Amino acid sequence: MTTIDLEIICIGNELLIGKTLNTNAQWMGKRATQMGLAVRRITFIPDEIQEIAMAIKETLKRKTRFILTTGGLGPTFDDKTLEGLALALNRKLEVNRKALKMVKEKYETYARRSHTETVELTKPRLKMATLPKETVPLPNPVGTAPGVQAEIEQTTLIALPGVPREMEAIFEETVAPILMQPSGDRNFFERSICVEDIMESSLAPLIDEVMKDNPDVYVKSHPKGEESNPHIEIHFSTTLGKAERQEERLERAVMQLSGAIKISGGKIISKNMTDP
Amino acid sequence: MTTIDLEIICIGNELLIGKTLNTNAQWMGKRATQMGLAVRRITFIPDEIQEIAMAIKETLKRKTRFILTTGGLGPTFDDKTLEGLALALNRKLEVNRKALKMVKEKYETYARRSHTETVELTKPRLKMATLPKETVPLPNPVGTAPGVQAEIEQTTLIALPGVPREMEAIFEETVAPILMQPSGDRNFFERSICVEDIMESSLAPLIDEVMKDNPDVYVKSHPKGEESNPHIEIHFSTTLGKAERQEERLERAVMQLSGAIKISGGKIISKNMTDP
Repeated sequence: MTTIDLEIICIGNELLIGKTLNTNAQWMGKRATQMGLAVRRITFIPDEIQEIAMAIKETLKRKTRFILTTGGLGPTFDDKTLEGLALALNRKLEVNRKALKMVKEKYETYARRSHTETVELTKPRLKMATLPKETVPLPNPVGTAPGVQAEIEQTTLIALPGVPREMEAIFEETVAPILMQPSGDRNFFERSICVEDIMESSLAPLIDEVMKDNPDVYVKSHPKGEESNPHIEIHFSTTLGKAERQEERLERAVMQLSGAIKISGGKIISKNMTDP
Repeated sequence: MTTIDLEIICIGNELLIGKTLNTNAQWMGKRATQMGLAVRRITFIPDEIQEIAMAIKETLKRKTRFILTTGGLGPTFDDKTLEGLALALNRKLEVNRKALKMVKEKYETYARRSHTETVELTKPRLKMATLPKETVPLPNPVGTAPGVQAEIEQTTLIALPGVPREMEAIFEETVAPILMQPSGDRNFFERSICVEDIMESSLAPLIDEVMKDNPDVYVKSHPKGEESNPHIEIHFSTTLGKAERQEERLERAVMQLSGAIKISGGKIISKNMTDP
């Protein structure tokens, strides 16, 4: 079974200046991982056409199977993702008929609801339906701006809005089935245990040993306290093989490490199943 | 006044698989922005030597003035930042005398405190003092692994631990003064207002107008509700010029946009000073 790579590009000055905590990156990383994809890189870039184009081109050069972007699809001047995508792909921007229909219907609904505003397709509204040539709009069930799908040689790029509930809705409705196809029945399994009374530096050789004996299990320690007063979460994960075998394999690694930790004077304080 | 660029590289599989929400990226982005630096890119990469080296090399190629990395400095096998840095810079790894002293003293303190463990400089512990040649260890006031500073042509790279309290402590004690030097008295000022009863697409041309009239102020809308039931935060920021002038300039832009919004039927529901 080969690994299917995915990269995430998050677009927005607010992410770089620390105004907004990027929960989208975590959400998408988690969902893609649960689906058995390997999230290889996450990049935050500013609302600048050149930067967006450059980041997309770099990711394409790495021949990543999937690229997901978030942010920059809205009506304001600083929503520049589609311009950046057009530049990266060297494709013209044009009003996309399907996207126009989607956007129009949204504003008709809004007008009916509010009984006030007539549906005028102003330039900012039209902007959300202006896509790079040969791309496909994806319906936005909870917002206005459609997502956009582009195929570039071996890569599928999907641009999603930055508003979390819109991103998540399009992801679940349209993106998840696209990502599922090639990844087949790959699964991601994980478990965590928490230990005390053993320093991370003393844990290191024990983890090495367990990873050597369990080559398909990845074990990583996350120190929560200090080295001198240690409280460490140990995270076990595996993506390879059949589901039943994965659980078995994780269990074996957890047992082996737990035993070694106890012998070294450490204490296992909790065992959590954190499978998705 | 020229812009001083900074990039952040966050190292750790847990960030890519969505296990951990990356609060370090936000914290560092905010602090650097407050100091007047331009955060140009934030990249998350896995615990892999090749990937770490590649990301560092790409950032160096962009001639970024400062690179901050977090994560991967600890004692376990998956802490690979220094190996990646050594590969990127083509410098050998060797036990750094200053770093060794720092690490040794930590373990002596831990041993005194616990009355049990003797200070044995095992391989995992020695690892934290094994730095690429010609780099400088930075004291870690609250943890074990020192930070690491490297000078590469026009770039200063600083590697910090991934544990938030350790990263923050080294940042405040040692990194902030380094970043301050060239940035001089540059400041970042920001304000936000929240508006209702106006769609983001109707707001777009008003923001365009205000940005045209206030070229040093950046205005960005952050929709919190839906387009049809809008609740929008509008964020104003500026980094250029003297502090008094900046506040004045922001105030003028806020006033102008607030007026235009009211004329268009929108409602200003809050004005928050969010200056750092």
